[in-house]
Amino acid sequence: MTVQAIAWSSSGGVRIVDQRALPETCVTRELESGEDVVEAIRTMQVRGAPLIGIAAAMGLVAGLRERRGATRDSFLERQRGLADRLAAARPTAVNLRWALDRMRRVADATRGGGPELWDRLHAEATAIWEEDREMCRRIGEHGLPLVPDGTHVLTHCNAGALATGGIGTALAPIYLAHAAGRRLQVFVDETRPLLQGARLTAWELAQAGIPCTVIVDAVAGALMRAAAVDVVLVGADRIARNGDVANKIGTYTLAVLARHHGVPFHCAAPSSTIDAALPDGDAIPIEQRPPDEVTWLAGRRVAPAGVPAANPAFDITPARYVTSYVTDRGLVQPPFDP
Amino acid sequence: MTVQAIAWSSSGGVRIVDQRALPETCVTRELESGEDVVEAIRTMQVRGAPLIGIAAAMGLVAGLRERRGATRDSFLERQRGLADRLAAARPTAVNLRWALDRMRRVADATRGGGPELWDRLHAEATAIWEEDREMCRRIGEHGLPLVPDGTHVLTHCNAGALATGGIGTALAPIYLAHAAGRRLQVFVDETRPLLQGARLTAWELAQAGIPCTVIVDAVAGALMRAAAVDVVLVGADRIARNGDVANKIGTYTLAVLARHHGVPFHCAAPSSTIDAALPDGDAIPIEQRPPDEVTWLAGRRVAPAGVPAANPAFDITPARYVTSYVTDRGLVQPPFDP
Repeated sequence: MTVQAIAWSSSGGVRIVDQRALPETCVTRELESGEDVVEAIRTMQVRGAPLIGIAAAMGLVAGLRERRGATRDSFLERQRGLADRLAAARPTAVNLRWALDRMRRVADATRGGGPELWDRLHAEATAIWEEDREMCRRIGEHGLPLVPDGTHVLTHCNAGALATGGIGTALAPIYLAHAAGRRLQVFVDETRPLLQGARLTAWELAQAGIPCTVIVDAVAGALMRAAAVDVVLVGADRIARNGDVANKIGTYTLAVLARHHGVPFHCAAPSSTIDAALPDGDAIPIEQRPPDEVTWLAGRRVAPAGVPAANPAFDITPARYVTSYVTDRGLVQPPFDP
Repeated sequence: MTVQAIAWSSSGGVRIVDQRALPETCVTRELESGEDVVEAIRTMQVRGAPLIGIAAAMGLVAGLRERRGATRDSFLERQRGLADRLAAARPTAVNLRWALDRMRRVADATRGGGPELWDRLHAEATAIWEEDREMCRRIGEHGLPLVPDGTHVLTHCNAGALATGGIGTALAPIYLAHAAGRRLQVFVDETRPLLQGARLTAWELAQAGIPCTVIVDAVAGALMRAAAVDVVLVGADRIARNGDVANKIGTYTLAVLARHHGVPFHCAAPSSTIDAALPDGDAIPIEQRPPDEVTWLAGRRVAPAGVPAANPAFDITPARYVTSYVTDRGLVQPPFDP
């Protein structure tokens, strides 16, 4: 069974799997207020570019429930304020702003007061979620030829069901290949510092009964040298017009290793991840996260006091390392027109 | 100040830095009995191949103090018993048995009873330690031209003062360059799974006042792409005749990245690490360590129950990736004659 990362709660709030508690326990949270959703995004209870966009749209709707009876101006003012706080929760996440912009345009184009606006936004947030599920399925279908029977896949971080509203992006072809009876083996980079690979990807693959093996990130080179990896499948947080990819730190290292060993390196992402306004990867800002994520583990120092740590959340993989971009529109190649 | 990982205590015991407590606290222990030293080696209070050998030799001498007045037979019997227990403390450590064999041969070749034997063994243990300090110093001197003023170095794991009796192997040129007034910046791979880089290398560099920054292992590629790394300096656990290197898992990934970005990749090791009886790296057995080192952190699961982890302790870096081998005999190139 593939896990479902987000849904409406029965009270009209947002039900999420709190990804911080995995893999030890599966905690489901019902987020009632917009601020709850801001906090959930900021603290990475939900993470993954597509899922963050869906959560923001649904969180906006949940947070505007109290203004359903308000005047148009009052409703839109609250919408703007909450959207700003949602957008600021993760500065690099383009899907976050994409979803919130879409919600704003829909509101602008809708006549009437609070009741009409809220109903329209609720339908739009649901549509964003449904489109994401459909998008995942299409990515899976387009990527299916990349994972024939017997394939050994290497993946990084989590670009799976826990990152989307559906069956994931990089993991979507894996889920569909498994459902089609193909035998796969997935090597999962643990993905330091936050261990999304070990904690999330291994968990959701295990839930679905797909054989996987966790490795520390530094093992990838030795595996490729031993010809144990047939294909690398990763997600993307942002793709520039020329095809440069921003993704979890370590993606570029994998891309270099794949190129060096002649292993195909595919990047799976919704076409909305392509930001054609950005000429290339150098224009993508890299989020620098707190050093403590590196220097502390489970409440204990693992690096000496006073020693700095560099903790970039992402790196840029230049387009020339990417074999293909697996999107909901098919396998595509840059440049990507606006 | 460079840390001194081992020394004679004023009472004739062995003084060590308990490496389990680092980097949170620096606990110095005075090991009075041979059994104390067995326990310190077994529980990895001391680790690093050269340091373990020195600790065993010095521990043997400390443990034989009580038999100084004994007859030859009684003294040698106690030496054999203690040496067996020291050797069993870390079954795979080659330097441990090398040091104890050397102590046994010296005793066999010495005439007289307890007093003569003990004096000779004390001198030999001190010689083993002094030779290691000298070896480190020579590696440092030969490696000094590789780290000119302003160099940004990347290193992996711990090949420093905490692994030897002196100033380390890969870190030796860094210590000497710093002492010569050169401004350096050292990027320290945290080195999963056991984090020897974050815990030990960063600590000993900070003690010496050498600027360093801890990174997760997956950052290396992005740093090199940003031209932030001038040179990679790593140690070696074993070097084959053709120059293939066995070293901490992740070394090969660094070597590929360095080659790809045109960054020099140097391997520093005592010439005793070169095993000319091994034709190439494929003949080096790779220790597979317990999966729990990957799947558990500080008493908490980080990968789901039932999901396997692969945990090779080392990888093989083929000779063609190694710019030079920095040894106590100079910068050398393979093939290495027996």
